[in-house]
Amino acid sequence: MEQPIQYRLIKKEKHTGARLGELITPHGTFSTPIFMPVGTQATVKTMAPEELKTIGASVILANTYHLWLRPGSQLVRAAGGLHQFMHWDQGILTDSGGFQVFSLAHRRGISEEGVTFKSHLDGQPMFLSPEKAIHIENDLGSDIMMSLDECPPFFESHAYLKASVERTSRWAQRGLQAHRHPDRQGIFGIVQGGGYHDLRRQSARDLTSLDFAGYSIGGLSVGESKAEMNHVLDFTTPWLPENKPRYLMGVGTADSLLDGVIRGIDMFDCVLPTRIARNGTCMTSQGRLVVKNAQYAQDFTPLDPQCDCYTCRNYTRAYIRHLIHVNETFGIHLTSYHNLYYLVHLMARIRQAIRDDNLLDLRAEVFDQYGFNEKNAKNF
Amino acid sequence: MEQPIQYRLIKKEKHTGARLGELITPHGTFSTPIFMPVGTQATVKTMAPEELKTIGASVILANTYHLWLRPGSQLVRAAGGLHQFMHWDQGILTDSGGFQVFSLAHRRGISEEGVTFKSHLDGQPMFLSPEKAIHIENDLGSDIMMSLDECPPFFESHAYLKASVERTSRWAQRGLQAHRHPDRQGIFGIVQGGGYHDLRRQSARDLTSLDFAGYSIGGLSVGESKAEMNHVLDFTTPWLPENKPRYLMGVGTADSLLDGVIRGIDMFDCVLPTRIARNGTCMTSQGRLVVKNAQYAQDFTPLDPQCDCYTCRNYTRAYIRHLIHVNETFGIHLTSYHNLYYLVHLMARIRQAIRDDNLLDLRAEVFDQYGFNEKNAKNF
Repeated sequence: MEQPIQYRLIKKEKHTGARLGELITPHGTFSTPIFMPVGTQATVKTMAPEELKTIGASVILANTYHLWLRPGSQLVRAAGGLHQFMHWDQGILTDSGGFQVFSLAHRRGISEEGVTFKSHLDGQPMFLSPEKAIHIENDLGSDIMMSLDECPPFFESHAYLKASVERTSRWAQRGLQAHRHPDRQGIFGIVQGGGYHDLRRQSARDLTSLDFAGYSIGGLSVGESKAEMNHVLDFTTPWLPENKPRYLMGVGTADSLLDGVIRGIDMFDCVLPTRIARNGTCMTSQGRLVVKNAQYAQDFTPLDPQCDCYTCRNYTRAYIRHLIHVNETFGIHLTSYHNLYYLVHLMARIRQAIRDDNLLDLRAEVFDQYGFNEKNAKNF
Repeated sequence: MEQPIQYRLIKKEKHTGARLGELITPHGTFSTPIFMPVGTQATVKTMAPEELKTIGASVILANTYHLWLRPGSQLVRAAGGLHQFMHWDQGILTDSGGFQVFSLAHRRGISEEGVTFKSHLDGQPMFLSPEKAIHIENDLGSDIMMSLDECPPFFESHAYLKASVERTSRWAQRGLQAHRHPDRQGIFGIVQGGGYHDLRRQSARDLTSLDFAGYSIGGLSVGESKAEMNHVLDFTTPWLPENKPRYLMGVGTADSLLDGVIRGIDMFDCVLPTRIARNGTCMTSQGRLVVKNAQYAQDFTPLDPQCDCYTCRNYTRAYIRHLIHVNETFGIHLTSYHNLYYLVHLMARIRQAIRDDNLLDLRAEVFDQYGFNEKNAKNF
């Protein structure tokens, strides 16, 4: 049987580990590297699907944990799956729920069988196993599913992380076996291991011995430094197969996208662009701009004079600031639209730079715009 | 000098007082009767201007009181006026601020000069006079401005209302004289007088003796019964000139639009469609539908099976209920879009019924859909 998710490597950049490729899914073929907007609750906050297409988004992420709780995966299945439920006909990736169980839910108990926890909504006792996670994702009908992993803190002890990595590998195998729709959904395994070279290697070796459609790198962007994240990527991506896509989970600052791509990452997701948008913060070609600040009250220029998105073509900082100031959600829509456009557009520029073999020039340009250097680059 | 706002009567319906016409403004010519969505704070809540055009909205309303407080009328003027500030190139009507001063603001003191009150936002003392209201509206640059009126309760005493009507007439004259842009903005006078025949007559006579671009009927839809409102319209509209537009302020239920049109009203506005949308309530061809109710959790049909708006073509009740249930503003956007489409589309059907001389048939159909009768018709 042909894998529903495939990766085609088109070109490697001359000076870095960056790769230009194609992600082939049942809902379309998409250029990589790719940034995937997050639609936690079956909607990318404030954005219509048509608007996401207009800005060039092609794969979006939905959160298994949230949708399992509300509206429930069986309801989504009854609706014809997530694509039909939310009116999105391009790619959808679902996480495993593991990250949310370990970050949002209360009173966790972890065993070989799975994780028991209490819902963060109503305290109801819940149980998530590797099989259950895959079955929920089967109900959701995403193109790309994640295998259930444990997400321990980056700075856990070596002993704890070793046991955790080994359990995550056993869970990965169970998830693969539980898969009900191998003809139309692919599963990625998630490489864990904190900052430890030997554990990342063990995790990568365990998972690449199984036939996953792609590989995620988890447990990063959780409080470690930018240098630590890059260090882990430096030694982890070389262990991943060239013919499978590589996904760095939860990363979405301009600098981290560039540094991830340079280390061979193909896929990224992050709530950052829509989350900071709700706070009136924008990513621009001039760096970070907090449009809700009083200094923009009478500024009749666009958020980003170099941007040609819908927001920047039609609205001023003064207007957007006013809307956010008086709690009009249309203001948040305009900043969300711009931030998503910024990252999706940056990714298109990154792909072009890979074609042109000048990715390091683009990196220098963007780092300069944000006033980033190697020390503060993570502090968007 | 040619009036910037003109009205052209095209046809009267055979069996009622309904009129088909055109409202000619500096930002376009629009068919009447018309329903005008409300954009209180320089945005129709959750709606992009392009979406408003797609549903067929042509004139929108903005609230002078709110914009005066935030972001301030001088800022809007510096932005190039409200049209440019909010990216809307069709008609804009502004109210005078009077209604909000009398309903929102605290500790009012009314004198011949104007109204002193405290801002509902921060308690700052404010003063609004007929001249000031017009100057704020001049700054906003709306196509149609309202003269400052006092909005006393419908059931005030005859003595109070008589003094109030007389003051409103004097204020109307002062507003006309204060007008700074008679070449590009028109002013409407507002007929008051509660439920009293003689006071409505006096108000209409006073105001029509002045050269207003059109006439508003104020002080209705404020707690009086549906029968009382219709009664006031029955005797008031005949006193208004045929060659000027007539605007019934703050009315936007399906039945009241029909009953207003039948009595010769050309223009309506109301926050109802977007306000109830935020509560998950929808206007449909099957009557009122509270989509957030549990009974729709697994209902995979559109809000209104007979509607062809963007929401109804692409989303189910189950999905919209889910979004509202989990506090996703996109859900409110979808219900707002539908409700505005419903009223704008109803108005297009009303215009067609005037052409076809069968408006009473349409009235019977809509009243039947909502289970309205003459007693409960106002209780949407």
